[in-house]
Amino acid sequence: MERTPVAIVGAGPAGLMLSHLLSRAGVDSVAIDLRTRAEIEATHRAGILEHVSVRLLVDEGVSDRVLREGDEHEGIALRFGGRSHRLDFRELAGSSVWLYPQTEVFVDLADARRRDGGDVRFGVRDVQVDVTGERPLLRFTDADGTPVHLTADLLVGADGSRSVCRHLVPEADRRRYTREYPFAWFGILCQAPRSHDELVYTRSERGFALISSRTETLQRMYFQCDPATDPHAWSDDRIWAELQARVAGEDSFTLREGPITERAVLPFRSFVQEPLHHGRLALAGDAGHTVPPTGAKGLNLALQDVRVLAEVVPDVLRRDDPSLLAHYSQRALQRVWRAQHFSYWMTSMLHNAPDGSPFDDRRALGELTGLTRSAAGSCYLAEGYTGWPS
Amino acid sequence: MERTPVAIVGAGPAGLMLSHLLSRAGVDSVAIDLRTRAEIEATHRAGILEHVSVRLLVDEGVSDRVLREGDEHEGIALRFGGRSHRLDFRELAGSSVWLYPQTEVFVDLADARRRDGGDVRFGVRDVQVDVTGERPLLRFTDADGTPVHLTADLLVGADGSRSVCRHLVPEADRRRYTREYPFAWFGILCQAPRSHDELVYTRSERGFALISSRTETLQRMYFQCDPATDPHAWSDDRIWAELQARVAGEDSFTLREGPITERAVLPFRSFVQEPLHHGRLALAGDAGHTVPPTGAKGLNLALQDVRVLAEVVPDVLRRDDPSLLAHYSQRALQRVWRAQHFSYWMTSMLHNAPDGSPFDDRRALGELTGLTRSAAGSCYLAEGYTGWPS
Repeated sequence: MERTPVAIVGAGPAGLMLSHLLSRAGVDSVAIDLRTRAEIEATHRAGILEHVSVRLLVDEGVSDRVLREGDEHEGIALRFGGRSHRLDFRELAGSSVWLYPQTEVFVDLADARRRDGGDVRFGVRDVQVDVTGERPLLRFTDADGTPVHLTADLLVGADGSRSVCRHLVPEADRRRYTREYPFAWFGILCQAPRSHDELVYTRSERGFALISSRTETLQRMYFQCDPATDPHAWSDDRIWAELQARVAGEDSFTLREGPITERAVLPFRSFVQEPLHHGRLALAGDAGHTVPPTGAKGLNLALQDVRVLAEVVPDVLRRDDPSLLAHYSQRALQRVWRAQHFSYWMTSMLHNAPDGSPFDDRRALGELTGLTRSAAGSCYLAEGYTGWPS
Repeated sequence: MERTPVAIVGAGPAGLMLSHLLSRAGVDSVAIDLRTRAEIEATHRAGILEHVSVRLLVDEGVSDRVLREGDEHEGIALRFGGRSHRLDFRELAGSSVWLYPQTEVFVDLADARRRDGGDVRFGVRDVQVDVTGERPLLRFTDADGTPVHLTADLLVGADGSRSVCRHLVPEADRRRYTREYPFAWFGILCQAPRSHDELVYTRSERGFALISSRTETLQRMYFQCDPATDPHAWSDDRIWAELQARVAGEDSFTLREGPITERAVLPFRSFVQEPLHHGRLALAGDAGHTVPPTGAKGLNLALQDVRVLAEVVPDVLRRDDPSLLAHYSQRALQRVWRAQHFSYWMTSMLHNAPDGSPFDDRRALGELTGLTRSAAGSCYLAEGYTGWPS
């Protein structure tokens, strides 16, 4: 029987960042993940980092690569009515975001944990979690086949949007808040030059489109689609025609095409489980809450969750008082609900609800027009996009 | 057969203001209304004037009484989570609004028209409007029983939310945009001292409430209700219990009660008819568009409509080219859609949709929390509430 102060289920960015921050606070932990490191590295996700996320990675010694290899974006374009309207984050909110894929954040964290001798076990099997006893108990088979029994003072579920840990909280002790959306994102990766040097968020009569970039030669694009869409039933030509129709306008913007190398339909929803703790269990990141991708808050919320959690955990352990996890839940949920609103707002302002009325379409254009004409409104959006102070 | 350059159907604030502004531009008009002046004066409506509305009334010589007898409000309170959060309009947006009942605006306009010898005919009957011929034709019976045939170069429908004139536009030549709301306002007038010196907009788990004021001793209050509510089925005690429950909190705010002298259930919707012109017909104010009362944009939009219309009409008449009314429609609709969004936003942020999910309730609290913490967000709301530049 092994023992650890903190067992972390899930070694994605949230779990690894927590392991890292706890280590810096002198607290040992064991993080496990069903996936191998290579499998996680192959998981492509959006990568817009708020400036507080970048600061966290840099200041805590995880990454200076983000500053060298990431792309600082000082604004976005909101495109509607056939024209692009730039929001200058630097000017509006004195802030910016960094384009740095989630995979790279993971690589930096995994490298930092290895460098610092952190106990991270990828590729485990047969995971069983038991929080019904006095201390949480974790059973799993290590990557080399060794069965492990691990007791912990605290268990952290950082196991993502399909979290197992969140279901360990009895129904009577939790509330779940959900919003489903009647659309999904059709995402592609393509070999093409950049169409624009910042992200272009488009609202058109045909629905939402997002023109984003991975590298000089590799572009990421998304457009709103029916959640039941089969991405492989769409020819490249049809995809490009749809994207072109959505960004069409009267200005000089040109969407550059190229061979499509990846495609997927990404459903999403809004979800929060409250509170983020139960007994000796805490939930962090997507395990506790998910947001629609519009506005790219998911990874950023996860990092802020574990930042707060790492501040609270040493107290919890020192006093052996798990009820103090309530401080974590309360503090983290304030940001979570603010971000839930922001993500919902960006989503509803930029998408066409299939069951929406023409009134709503015109109203949304009225909103976008008013927002881009108002320095205050633009700043309010810029604050949300670049992230509130931690 | 009488002739006039401009016939105006409806002598409420929109019709009278248009008549007044045209007169100052040297253009004669005839305004008619089915209601007597006394009937219109007995119609009580909200009375929050944007500062551009106040400037219009003052600068155009309609009213200086608004400055003497109106109440300048430099902010509002947003009340949620059991606490009030003040938005300081002066500090945020360098602006303010004036509380001055719509009835008083009407009295000032009617007096100004009488003073200047304007042709305004109240209490007419048997009105028939015909815009199918070369020139608009208006037939009605004057208050003294005289039948009148009036031809005009232009006809303006300023006949309110139950406009007859808007139906003169053939279906093929107009688009209508509508949004219904699953709630109405239960409004009361009561003899009580002021509870607060500014308006209090409340979101509670039981729904919206608005604490407003008419005079030192007469208060106006509203709360969200089912549109099918019979206001006379509610006892005074039940009304006060409901209002008290909605504004309840942990701070010192006290809702002061008193005898309820008027009560009514006010249904509402969002509506726009486009364009605001057809041939020699133009629509102004509620005849062309209505907004939910949250944010009190209705009267202000009507005044801005006729301000723009009065700028365009002299050109239309001089060139005898009604197609120039398109300039009016385009300019007015920009403000209309901005205000439609603002009114929808205020409404949805502060009301509980009966079919809404707990997620939406929590999200709205997240929005209100974020908004009141953000100077930019607060300023964005203040700009909308006090009114954009004309």
